[in-house]
Amino acid sequence: MKNIVMLGAGNVATHLGMALKEAGYNIVQVFSRTERSASQLAGRLATEYTNDIKKITSGADIYIIAVKDGAITTVVETLQLVRQLADATSLQINGLIVHTSGTISIDVLKDVSENIGVFYPLQTFSKNVVETRCSVSLLFKNIPICIEANNKSNEDILLNLAGSISENVHLINTQQRKLLHLAAVFACNFSNHMYAVAEDILKKGNLPFDMLKPLIIETANKIENNSPNDMQTGPAIRGDQMIMVEHLEYLAELPEYREMYKLISESIST
Amino acid sequence: MKNIVMLGAGNVATHLGMALKEAGYNIVQVFSRTERSASQLAGRLATEYTNDIKKITSGADIYIIAVKDGAITTVVETLQLVRQLADATSLQINGLIVHTSGTISIDVLKDVSENIGVFYPLQTFSKNVVETRCSVSLLFKNIPICIEANNKSNEDILLNLAGSISENVHLINTQQRKLLHLAAVFACNFSNHMYAVAEDILKKGNLPFDMLKPLIIETANKIENNSPNDMQTGPAIRGDQMIMVEHLEYLAELPEYREMYKLISESIST
Repeated sequence: MKNIVMLGAGNVATHLGMALKEAGYNIVQVFSRTERSASQLAGRLATEYTNDIKKITSGADIYIIAVKDGAITTVVETLQLVRQLADATSLQINGLIVHTSGTISIDVLKDVSENIGVFYPLQTFSKNVVETRCSVSLLFKNIPICIEANNKSNEDILLNLAGSISENVHLINTQQRKLLHLAAVFACNFSNHMYAVAEDILKKGNLPFDMLKPLIIETANKIENNSPNDMQTGPAIRGDQMIMVEHLEYLAELPEYREMYKLISESIST
Repeated sequence: MKNIVMLGAGNVATHLGMALKEAGYNIVQVFSRTERSASQLAGRLATEYTNDIKKITSGADIYIIAVKDGAITTVVETLQLVRQLADATSLQINGLIVHTSGTISIDVLKDVSENIGVFYPLQTFSKNVVETRCSVSLLFKNIPICIEANNKSNEDILLNLAGSISENVHLINTQQRKLLHLAAVFACNFSNHMYAVAEDILKKGNLPFDMLKPLIIETANKIENNSPNDMQTGPAIRGDQMIMVEHLEYLAELPEYREMYKLISESIST
């Protein structure tokens, strides 16, 4: 039975902590700078917490740094500092330390422990998902988890950890992970912005965004069994100049969307 | 019981014809220039067909022109010509004539009949959907159908027709319909292209597109109960310049995607 310390108490830490607990792991401690968050997550996980980095339990098997990308360096630097100042009884992490970021190199961890890795769940967690799903395990089941480690033995530990909550585990290196993150920006962040632009356009005609929802869901569902390239529809792929010219005229008063329309249509048609 | 003639035998005509038949309407004839398509759809609807526009049944209640946007004018002009050349026994359509396009004005029909309208189902129909769903009625249930007619009485006929297959019927004018179509291009055609770009980027890292599917589905599902503006995530909305600069560097060899990345990120962050 592995003992895990969770560093962070935000969305990823919460979902991951709960899923790992459901999978049978011991979450022995939650650390967060914000005492309230630490206490809240510790309550959910029925475990201890601290907001003092010097009181982080030593001797756990796995330490998961699940904080925002921008905060990882701070956590890592503090851990290093504590390590340097440590006397024999204070923090001596020998376990495997991982972060959960899609964009940060594994190397950021190399001065903190000899056992390091990355455990990146490819999903955007909404704050209230925990409340709306019957089981966190179910939530993770299909989520891709990307693993990287500094040696084979740590790789195996992380593959087991990931495999306990997801059926979709991938071994990928830092370079691939960054590429994956970039692709996710297009596929998710940018497609969501396309929805937002559509909502904005509908407002001009006093039309409810609800009207587009079935089409949006259908469009996303279609790629389940098909390459998006083969599923492309619309005026650009048909080369329907008449419609495109009309659309650009409509967008004359929305120059930002007009540029996007032109650029994306060109990209589709080439 | 209304009698319907279906002009066209493509995806929209097929799905619509089958749904209306399931809803209890009589599809009395299918017309298509392409005899094979006409025959195929007529077979599915257990009805007659013709590929000769002069042999279109007169006296039906509703004529649905479900052909590609570019072909509507041709069908309409032919119908007008036939009408002009008609002797007493040939084509004299007195029923309600509608087209199914999101982008064509209702006015295109005004010289063909005194009873005209638009019946626009807001959906992209894939060719094989018929085979993969248990019931076409189920398929249409949530699809928005946009209605327009040249008078109240025709409006009522179309509202009834649409209401028989969908619970999501809207009365909107040509101007609104065109705006809706433009919004759908962003929300569906362009979001699908974002998926395609992502797939292309993943190929550079030998990563399977499958990895992004759960995230894509989740992104689309999130807007079911939320405004996409509130759901925006990613580096642009966080103002994470470090990541965005890194992403633009990655895209140096893909200038087309690089421009898109810049433009869409700017649009998100403003």
